[in-house]
Amino acid sequence: MTAALHLARPEHLDKLLTLVEAFHLEQGLETSAEHRRAGIEPLLQGIPYGAVYIIGPTRAPIGYIVVTFGWSVEFGGMDGFVDEIYIRPPVRGRGLASEVLIELPKTPAQAGIKALHLEVDRDNAQAQRLYQRARFEPRDRYMLMTKNL
Amino acid sequence: MTAALHLARPEHLDKLLTLVEAFHLEQGLETSAEHRRAGIEPLLQGIPYGAVYIIGPTRAPIGYIVVTFGWSVEFGGMDGFVDEIYIRPPVRGRGLASEVLIELPKTPAQAGIKALHLEVDRDNAQAQRLYQRARFEPRDRYMLMTKNL
Repeated sequence: MTAALHLARPEHLDKLLTLVEAFHLEQGLETSAEHRRAGIEPLLQGIPYGAVYIIGPTRAPIGYIVVTFGWSVEFGGMDGFVDEIYIRPPVRGRGLASEVLIELPKTPAQAGIKALHLEVDRDNAQAQRLYQRARFEPRDRYMLMTKNL
Repeated sequence: MTAALHLARPEHLDKLLTLVEAFHLEQGLETSAEHRRAGIEPLLQGIPYGAVYIIGPTRAPIGYIVVTFGWSVEFGGMDGFVDEIYIRPPVRGRGLASEVLIELPKTPAQAGIKALHLEVDRDNAQAQRLYQRARFEPRDRYMLMTKNL
């Protein structure tokens, strides 16, 4: 089994939404099917704000990763955000997520991206170790604040 | 004095870069003139990843705010990030930044944006109070991690 990444296209929508539902359930995010579709479908249709990669074979995905694109004056250009990453439970613990996070910055879509960020649960030491192995450094000095519109 | 917001256009580049330089100095960010220009100029030229607003009169700005646009599957659509906000020191303490942060989500460019985020120094209680007054809620459960590419 390898963590090969495939850029998701519109025909992968249904398979992806099944995985997104599983991920949101696991995370305790109460999203409706409509909400999840609104969050995923435009990314498959080529909007410039992000991309979804299927992990493993597209006919039988073992997970997915959503990378969103933004801009940072401090970094002097485009930056990216690992918005969601999910590996199906039966294949966890084999280093697939690490492999994806190391492979991801090499994909052509990342060309020109200055930095890649992600948000991690402060209490989730296991996830933090995974991200540190993939060379993500804590920006512990800062806190995110959010206003829902 | 009011904190009226004006969408910055290419002709405002030089005035803006003076303010960006002052902000980065104050923040201890060691950026070169070239780096700052690379971070600001594309935003004035209409790339879809963000916008700069001049605070106050465009001929004699009292500050600026950079909002960048991204995507969030969790929020089900576009989100925004207050990437930088700067008010010139002589006019601080008059509530201008609060006014900007309350006014900002009403601007047309924000149409369809589901959430606005920002990053604040954990030790900067004054800034945190300002953002809370503008209804930003701490996402204290999470930590950002960053990988420079």
